[in-house]
Amino acid sequence: MPGIPPSRYAYLGPEGTFTETALRALPAAARADLLPFSSVPLALDAVRAGDVDGAMVPIENSIEGGVTATVDALATGEPLVVVRESLVPISFVLAGRAGTTLDDVKRISTHPHAQAQCRGWLDGHLPDAAYVPALSTAAAAAGLSVSGDVGYDAALCAPIAANRYRLRVLADDVADNPFAVTRFVLVARPGVPPAPTGADKTSIVAFQPDDHPGGLLELLEQFAVRGVNLVRIESRPTGDAMGRYCFAIDAEGHVAEARMAEALVGLHRFCSQVRFLGSYPSAEAPPTTVRPGTSDAAFADGRAWVDRLREGRI
Amino acid sequence: MPGIPPSRYAYLGPEGTFTETALRALPAAARADLLPFSSVPLALDAVRAGDVDGAMVPIENSIEGGVTATVDALATGEPLVVVRESLVPISFVLAGRAGTTLDDVKRISTHPHAQAQCRGWLDGHLPDAAYVPALSTAAAAAGLSVSGDVGYDAALCAPIAANRYRLRVLADDVADNPFAVTRFVLVARPGVPPAPTGADKTSIVAFQPDDHPGGLLELLEQFAVRGVNLVRIESRPTGDAMGRYCFAIDAEGHVAEARMAEALVGLHRFCSQVRFLGSYPSAEAPPTTVRPGTSDAAFADGRAWVDRLREGRI
Amino acid sequence: MPGIPPSRYAYLGPEGTFTETALRALPAAARADLLPFSSVPLALDAVRAGDVDGAMVPIENSIEGGVTATVDALATGEPLVVVRESLVPISFVLAGRAGTTLDDVKRISTHPHAQAQCRGWLDGHLPDAAYVPALSTAAAAAGLSVSGDVGYDAALCAPIAANRYRLRVLADDVADNPFAVTRFVLVARPGVPPAPTGADKTSIVAFQPDDHPGGLLELLEQFAVRGVNLVRIESRPTGDAMGRYCFAIDAEGHVAEARMAEALVGLHRFCSQVRFLGSYPSAEAPPTTVRPGTSDAAFADGRAWVDRLREGRI
Amino acid sequence: MPGIPPSRYAYLGPEGTFTETALRALPAAARADLLPFSSVPLALDAVRAGDVDGAMVPIENSIEGGVTATVDALATGEPLVVVRESLVPISFVLAGRAGTTLDDVKRISTHPHAQAQCRGWLDGHLPDAAYVPALSTAAAAAGLSVSGDVGYDAALCAPIAANRYRLRVLADDVADNPFAVTRFVLVARPGVPPAPTGADKTSIVAFQPDDHPGGLLELLEQFAVRGVNLVRIESRPTGDAMGRYCFAIDAEGHVAEARMAEALVGLHRFCSQVRFLGSYPSAEAPPTTVRPGTSDAAFADGRAWVDRLREGRI
Repeated sequence: MPGIPPSRYAYLGPEGTFTETALRALPAAARADLLPFSSVPLALDAVRAGDVDGAMVPIENSIEGGVTATVDALATGEPLVVVRESLVPISFVLAGRAGTTLDDVKRISTHPHAQAQCRGWLDGHLPDAAYVPALSTAAAAAGLSVSGDVGYDAALCAPIAANRYRLRVLADDVADNPFAVTRFVLVARPGVPPAPTGADKTSIVAFQPDDHPGGLLELLEQFAVRGVNLVRIESRPTGDAMGRYCFAIDAEGHVAEARMAEALVGLHRFCSQVRFLGSYPSAEAPPTTVRPGTSDAAFADGRAWVDRLREGRI
Repeated sequence: MPGIPPSRYAYLGPEGTFTETALRALPAAARADLLPFSSVPLALDAVRAGDVDGAMVPIENSIEGGVTATVDALATGEPLVVVRESLVPISFVLAGRAGTTLDDVKRISTHPHAQAQCRGWLDGHLPDAAYVPALSTAAAAAGLSVSGDVGYDAALCAPIAANRYRLRVLADDVADNPFAVTRFVLVARPGVPPAPTGADKTSIVAFQPDDHPGGLLELLEQFAVRGVNLVRIESRPTGDAMGRYCFAIDAEGHVAEARMAEALVGLHRFCSQVRFLGSYPSAEAPPTTVRPGTSDAAFADGRAWVDRLREGRI
Repeated sequence: MPGIPPSRYAYLGPEGTFTETALRALPAAARADLLPFSSVPLALDAVRAGDVDGAMVPIENSIEGGVTATVDALATGEPLVVVRESLVPISFVLAGRAGTTLDDVKRISTHPHAQAQCRGWLDGHLPDAAYVPALSTAAAAAGLSVSGDVGYDAALCAPIAANRYRLRVLADDVADNPFAVTRFVLVARPGVPPAPTGADKTSIVAFQPDDHPGGLLELLEQFAVRGVNLVRIESRPTGDAMGRYCFAIDAEGHVAEARMAEALVGLHRFCSQVRFLGSYPSAEAPPTTVRPGTSDAAFADGRAWVDRLREGRI
Repeated sequence: MPGIPPSRYAYLGPEGTFTETALRALPAAARADLLPFSSVPLALDAVRAGDVDGAMVPIENSIEGGVTATVDALATGEPLVVVRESLVPISFVLAGRAGTTLDDVKRISTHPHAQAQCRGWLDGHLPDAAYVPALSTAAAAAGLSVSGDVGYDAALCAPIAANRYRLRVLADDVADNPFAVTRFVLVARPGVPPAPTGADKTSIVAFQPDDHPGGLLELLEQFAVRGVNLVRIESRPTGDAMGRYCFAIDAEGHVAEARMAEALVGLHRFCSQVRFLGSYPSAEAPPTTVRPGTSDAAFADGRAWVDRLREGRI
């Protein structure tokens, strides 16, 4: 029946991770089936195959991997687009079974990256606790839902995992950097981009024509001359035998806006290939800075002026 | 009656100069009235007023002045456009009255700039000749058409002046730099530019929005990102109290071509004012270099791609 | 006793990974103690603390994580430098216990990223095999060294792990992309950089003074005007409350070379902070391209010329 | 006897021009011999030959020519340097013989460029006066010092010329643009530049290595990355058979300052030739803008940092 909202979403599993947290924060997720996948490529392929309506995957600063894997998986294969991004604060809880107290904790399990991000806290609060690596923060939590000795007494995990596995929170806001956030994106099959909001991002992957000196500068000038700010850039090996690079770029603005459209036309002319990964609302607050001379009206005025010149009406 | 070609042209006088030489080289000048004016601004005003159909004025490397005057006169006032440019080799003749021989020449008259450009020749051939400054090379020649002692025995002038005043050529190809040429432009009231030839120039005057550091770089990037080469640039004080500058720029290509049109749109957005001074065939031979990704087709392809992105057809 | 080579190296564990493979390829590792650490930050802190002489960690394209973690761990804390980089082909073996044949394999364990990179091979050769996620490729191999059913029949792992755990190789060269390599770096405490070889890299992390438009362009121009090529760039959030970015950059050349030294002086002037992460031999073959005017001699000539200008000897 | 100031200066004549006005404004000119020359190249050659200690010549916006001639004459031949620049307001007087009144003026003589710059005033005050071209504004004034009818009743000239020839000023402040100024430079043989004042200019002529696209941008980046502002740029044909260009550039700052020295080193590396035309106090008031990170101290700090890196002291 037409009009029914999308009802199945993939995410980088397992259950109980920050990725699931990001997905559940979406209103559309409330009535949807949420399906964990064991890797980003598998989650994205489920979108490509039409098995799900979208996939939530990490794109920056991830605890449990997936960043470069996500960029690489979007840069090749059947086209997909980002339709939404989410920021989730990276703050762990230390969780144990009912009855456990902080003093009881001699052995802690979590993913190695999570352990690395909480070392300061652990040194301060549980300096003598042993560390047991886990496949994911969620797996560490899940283990405690089984009875008997599982090799550790508490798990450092996302709040959602403690809740999911009915664990007791022994400490919360566990993180050495209180500002740490992870960025996630919701990926879907190509379609008309979400309407511009005035605070949007556009993501692309641009393949350089060759490796001549200054090539990256020329590529970035395509944005700069239209007054488009970049918010992220990352070079990635293209994976072929040539040792060449592509650039994953997030820029402020929306393809529906003239300055972004012109920059993309420029990239399309300049690059051997440009992959459009979507225009979507930015998860951060501030609206796009529109510098003088870069509004849609300024582009339209300029074009009308040139049209007049061509007709001799100066 | 429609179809009648333009029939009156102004030029920077007096008669017998290289400017007249440039004008007479035009086929259209054969059946036209050619009117000398005493300054570039006066010649251009005659075009603005409709008194003449065009004006030939010097724009580079001039012997008898007018370069910056020409740029300044085009940069302000009612709009005018260049419709043609001409290159004239700067080679003088030494001319005297009938019966005069080179040995008779004790005093030579010409414009000071011409004298400066022939000093090597004069030192080698007539080291003892005195110099008598003249208002123009043509005026020096004209003087010899009057009988009696006019204060000098020979004139360094354009070949056309020797011919005009029926003087005897005592030496030709007089010039220290055998490659010296002067560039002239034919200026007309605005109209549809001459059709593109594949080897065209476009002239503009761009006024910077302010004097912030790197402003010129940003301006030039508008050309560079579209693959448009510059062939001339000159900063000029704007003449107001602000100490600001404008830039007179000649670039390769035609406003009818996409890459030039896009560069002009960019300048229109970026600059406080852009004055279009015409697209016209280049007097030099080589056609415009079209770099990969800057053909009209490349621009059209890029735009079509962005149009598809906006509609979700990736 | 002086002259004794470094004798203890850390690496991102566990044993049997590609990181250990990279470390063992170093001649210096032959007689050294090699110590696995559970995370990149822990391995680097062991270097900082003086517990080890260096640490081998992944820096690009990693199977088992660590890329952004490595950059972030080098960008903060006590300074460390890269003294060597290594490229290791990413080619897995499928390994089982003695007596196992390919036909026996119904369940395969490996790290999720490894599984993702071998999906094509798995679909073609073992389409019906179940997947059991492991903490690392090496952990999957290690599991098979224990007797009894460990929940899977074969491990996708590095050749070194199959050898370490005396497993039988059921298939080798398992990888969907035959060109895949992972880059590792050997990190040490600051010291005089390795001598220039003519094919070196310099790594830095540059912190932008602010987020003004075009800031990245200005930063990259510091390299471009000295003819220094970039080989990698990645923006990273700085992790403070400001939402600011830093840039991890690898450039061709060595700090002992004038063009790189000048570029670094420029960055030091321009950026709010620059962190030098070392100059070291490039793992790829080709020597640095020295463009005209960027040799040490060209810099010395230019400086000598300016010195003469200052003294009036023109 | 040592310590005696220079005592002979050349200038672009004739006597009574704005160029003489500029020269007489110098304190050093008070006790010096001032020698008019008929062209800029002749005046400069007198400096080269040691016949005079310096030459005052026009460099911008000139009434009586010489701008491009000056640049071209400085760009070739034995090196010369600018040691001082002067700005002279371009304001004419209308001068006649004793007893002449404005109503008596039926015929006016002056240089054509001067007439062009006063057309508005003339149309408003003496719309019916005939125009008689003169070789210079000073020559027009000088003519009136001869008794008898010289063909005109009044001269438009510099105030100095009216004074020199004891003419009566019939109107002063005659100029259509009240802000018009002409820039002059005092040229000398090479020597230690005048000491930096904090508000200096440096002039150069840079010859491009070839005509590749974007070459000018790369040249200008040498200034931009060191935070050096440009105040004038002009492309000039090099005068050889190749159709190549050089660029005459005035930039803010002094060769004794690090940022200018570095920019010059960069140009020396990048260009096929760079001609240094001097560092000298700017005639305009405002001191050079020193952007953050471009002070001498910032350069010294950066260099000291790189020196430490090379020694491993991070």
